[in-house]
Amino acid sequence: MSIQVDMESLLLEVLTETSSSASEGKVASYIPELSKADPSLAGVAVMTPDGLFQAGDSSHPFTLQSISKIITLMAALEQRGVEEVFARVGSEPTGDPFNSIVKLETAEHKPLNPMINAGAIAVCSLIPGSSVEERFSIILEMLEAILGRTVQIDQAVYTSEKETGHRNRALAYFLKDTGVLEGDVEEVLDLYFQQCSILVDCTDLARIGMFLAAKGITWSGQRLVSASIVRLVTTFMVTCGMYNASGEFAIQVGIPAKSGVSGGILGAVPGRFGIGTFGPALDPKGNSIVGVKMLRELSHRLDLSIF
Amino acid sequence: MSIQVDMESLLLEVLTETSSSASEGKVASYIPELSKADPSLAGVAVMTPDGLFQAGDSSHPFTLQSISKIITLMAALEQRGVEEVFARVGSEPTGDPFNSIVKLETAEHKPLNPMINAGAIAVCSLIPGSSVEERFSIILEMLEAILGRTVQIDQAVYTSEKETGHRNRALAYFLKDTGVLEGDVEEVLDLYFQQCSILVDCTDLARIGMFLAAKGITWSGQRLVSASIVRLVTTFMVTCGMYNASGEFAIQVGIPAKSGVSGGILGAVPGRFGIGTFGPALDPKGNSIVGVKMLRELSHRLDLSIF
Amino acid sequence: MSIQVDMESLLLEVLTETSSSASEGKVASYIPELSKADPSLAGVAVMTPDGLFQAGDSSHPFTLQSISKIITLMAALEQRGVEEVFARVGSEPTGDPFNSIVKLETAEHKPLNPMINAGAIAVCSLIPGSSVEERFSIILEMLEAILGRTVQIDQAVYTSEKETGHRNRALAYFLKDTGVLEGDVEEVLDLYFQQCSILVDCTDLARIGMFLAAKGITWSGQRLVSASIVRLVTTFMVTCGMYNASGEFAIQVGIPAKSGVSGGILGAVPGRFGIGTFGPALDPKGNSIVGVKMLRELSHRLDLSIF
Amino acid sequence: MSIQVDMESLLLEVLTETSSSASEGKVASYIPELSKADPSLAGVAVMTPDGLFQAGDSSHPFTLQSISKIITLMAALEQRGVEEVFARVGSEPTGDPFNSIVKLETAEHKPLNPMINAGAIAVCSLIPGSSVEERFSIILEMLEAILGRTVQIDQAVYTSEKETGHRNRALAYFLKDTGVLEGDVEEVLDLYFQQCSILVDCTDLARIGMFLAAKGITWSGQRLVSASIVRLVTTFMVTCGMYNASGEFAIQVGIPAKSGVSGGILGAVPGRFGIGTFGPALDPKGNSIVGVKMLRELSHRLDLSIF
Repeated sequence: MSIQVDMESLLLEVLTETSSSASEGKVASYIPELSKADPSLAGVAVMTPDGLFQAGDSSHPFTLQSISKIITLMAALEQRGVEEVFARVGSEPTGDPFNSIVKLETAEHKPLNPMINAGAIAVCSLIPGSSVEERFSIILEMLEAILGRTVQIDQAVYTSEKETGHRNRALAYFLKDTGVLEGDVEEVLDLYFQQCSILVDCTDLARIGMFLAAKGITWSGQRLVSASIVRLVTTFMVTCGMYNASGEFAIQVGIPAKSGVSGGILGAVPGRFGIGTFGPALDPKGNSIVGVKMLRELSHRLDLSIF
Repeated sequence: MSIQVDMESLLLEVLTETSSSASEGKVASYIPELSKADPSLAGVAVMTPDGLFQAGDSSHPFTLQSISKIITLMAALEQRGVEEVFARVGSEPTGDPFNSIVKLETAEHKPLNPMINAGAIAVCSLIPGSSVEERFSIILEMLEAILGRTVQIDQAVYTSEKETGHRNRALAYFLKDTGVLEGDVEEVLDLYFQQCSILVDCTDLARIGMFLAAKGITWSGQRLVSASIVRLVTTFMVTCGMYNASGEFAIQVGIPAKSGVSGGILGAVPGRFGIGTFGPALDPKGNSIVGVKMLRELSHRLDLSIF
Repeated sequence: MSIQVDMESLLLEVLTETSSSASEGKVASYIPELSKADPSLAGVAVMTPDGLFQAGDSSHPFTLQSISKIITLMAALEQRGVEEVFARVGSEPTGDPFNSIVKLETAEHKPLNPMINAGAIAVCSLIPGSSVEERFSIILEMLEAILGRTVQIDQAVYTSEKETGHRNRALAYFLKDTGVLEGDVEEVLDLYFQQCSILVDCTDLARIGMFLAAKGITWSGQRLVSASIVRLVTTFMVTCGMYNASGEFAIQVGIPAKSGVSGGILGAVPGRFGIGTFGPALDPKGNSIVGVKMLRELSHRLDLSIF
Repeated sequence: MSIQVDMESLLLEVLTETSSSASEGKVASYIPELSKADPSLAGVAVMTPDGLFQAGDSSHPFTLQSISKIITLMAALEQRGVEEVFARVGSEPTGDPFNSIVKLETAEHKPLNPMINAGAIAVCSLIPGSSVEERFSIILEMLEAILGRTVQIDQAVYTSEKETGHRNRALAYFLKDTGVLEGDVEEVLDLYFQQCSILVDCTDLARIGMFLAAKGITWSGQRLVSASIVRLVTTFMVTCGMYNASGEFAIQVGIPAKSGVSGGILGAVPGRFGIGTFGPALDPKGNSIVGVKMLRELSHRLDLSIF
């Protein structure tokens, strides 16, 4: 029996066992357009050196949301260097929610890390370019090189985020006030909302995960990002990738991962796998209920924890 | 010897004794245009039923800044009623700085009171009208009726605030996100920046103070605001009028007062006086150093404390 | 008809109209002994230069709790002077609950004011003496001189507070750690728990209120505390006397007042009255429901607001 | 040339290169007894399946301090189970300092994780026993089984901590107030101060590290703690082991580690090594300056990062 049959039947099994738990969660409502998602969707994909394996709604498109923070962080580190990036954003996990503003006022002004919204907006402002288009093309180029295909943004989600992203706008103006964010605030926000609105599916996430697992080398063998930057990004996925459930996820699952409120989770098992999961029903901390369960099962059955 | 001679010589004496302390403070720098003010300016005016008394730079124009919160609060209470206003803003003093955002996240979302920036912006959003102009005319009408003259805004200050008011913009978008602020954020901010940029001098502040001291009756005898609204506003001046130095000011001076970062302070001695002081050099909490000293001296010599 | 008849019938009327609202509140439960109080009790007393007037359960004994902070603050100011006291405690109101610890860590270490627990414990530590007994006698002497009688502490409440006052103990050790509290922590706490456990009734509170209204002169004509200290204490009653409902109380009632969780409220109408109310059913912020209502009614009918 | 010679020369090299940086740090001063330490001391030890390697002051005794949290957490998990422990303490990292109290009030009452002081004190309270001695013996037994020797506490440090540990006392009483801490507060604190005062040296830390690297099996081959508990503890070392520098340490070093304010750091390289470092001069976040540098060098040269 081939490994392909084994992996695909495992994925189907895990999916079948966990997908009913979607009913315990809720689709994200803070962006009106996201609230239209079907909470019962569930998909999973795994990308290994042997190829791509998938089950369920693994080709259903959704927007990257916070998973885009990984791509933009790599792009900013490549373009500006470690020193410049960490002059604007810290590297410490935080027990606060992803959209919290408190620490910006009570602690030092630098956002605690690049995975919370404030930090990701600060990172966005570091992507160079004379226009939003030019800046966005840098992010797109990196993502498209990893995926080996061109991507689109979901115009309805983008417009919805732009119109209703008041909290992100508050964070950005706060960062402008404290001097952390350089340049035009609305331009940076536009860039941020665009990167959040990029359309992907589980197989794309699995491919990005494999790219990270391979320490920065694409499927076609291209060294796109240095190994040290990939290590840095992977570390952030462990300490801050699952919002303020990152600590629990590290214990329960132990796979470097990054979650998005549209229901996707990107996992990268160093040296082995990339994993993508999808399930729009979220737990109270903003992570896909089915996604977390599938990753936990896969970690236990295939011994994927890095700890 | 007439009371006029006595009061004017007292004002001159108090001004002379305190004006040198301006060197201990600093002109507000967070709005670029304000930083151009001459820190050595000092003026004082008192408006009593017997007339207007003044000393020093009492006719030097400056912008209302936070003192405008008094006018807008009265206008909002007149237009929308006590219940609607306090559905959007609290009535408790706070030990936090005037531009703090922390409590909006950690406590209930309602700004703690209408004298901090977040609260004043929420109050602004309650002024009715189909355009910024129409809304601003409601504030202007009230102020002009109190002063008995037309007023202008300082275009340079207004433009400067609008361009650099990132913290206020952050507060406003946060309030929008939590549902406290209704309507268009930029319109509300425009209204807020306009009211802050209205040009007055010490004699104007003394006249507004006299209006409050007379429980809402103008110099020409017109009942403009109900006595209960004036009482409410006067109470806020005591508990929250001097930023997070209000408690100390109540103890040391005991006059209901409202301060602005351009260096003005409006005082209202119930049933007796209105006082206006000016001195752009501020202490670390944002109150005019010379203004606070003059009010303290006047309070001690004329026994003006309400406590 | 004599003033006595008028005042007593007014008190009875106000009591009758408001006492049923006790059912909306809850007896304090954080000190086990206090939770045994009968929530339906309601009393009121007024002390004027013409004598004492009362209605309802005005002779029912209860413990001073936070109202004792007034007495100890006066004693500390008399013994140590304004400068030494305010080196240890601030003078700003705060929107935080009375037993909050947050500001001790995030703001400067000095408790924001002497009416919150942390501030009152810091003030306690300033009462001089070589033993708890000696220190407590200073507080007792002042209180007994004001009341013209000796007082006792409620041993059961004292023991209950001492055994279960974990939050106050946390505050005290935090203050010790930051250097605000001098001397032995447990001794200071013992003193604090004793002062909270002093037994009084409404007539006692009215008498203390009259003492403050008379700017520091006892019923028998003795100048016990300087007028400036009384003014200072009265100001704190306005800005911080009713926990984090002080701002609303100032607006609605306008009488300098101090509340305790056993259900008492002490009111002082400058130059006129002392008022004591009692009703153990509390609102969510810790103030007696019936007490606040009675004070509001009395303020409206007798025009007692200082604003 | 034997591996022993290689490893020992490497350790000596790394020690020599980094030890001068001690002058940039400061010996812990918050416990008076700790402030007597010699800041120039520096030692390192590595325990591998091939034996023990060491350099510098690797036999200099110091107290475990926060490193004891690892032992007590394992003991509590063994004695009470995962569910009971995590009913009292969370599993999320926090950007706050190790002795912070803020989150206990503003967030849920459970301490965010067992590596901050509040969390470690909560864990201590779960160690069963009818007396402090009995409870402490459970911790000692585990530690002595790991080390293969008996240990002592430093009486002077223990007494110093007990007398001056006001902040820890504040945390403990706060936890008592909110119901997180069960039992007698002073007993729990006594236990906590004792565990912090246990005397070890670098070779002991290396041995504990090897025990964790071997997933719970002692040098003599005894399964002392289940592999799942060791994995859990190791994960906490990554996300919260280096105070609020854990994120940066994960990126720069990538070794699961736990630091103590006496200057020790315990490192565990899964499946390979245990490392102990010592250097009392601390950086502003409380980690040994020389220790962090040595671990960073070892990680780079031997490729020890788990990321």
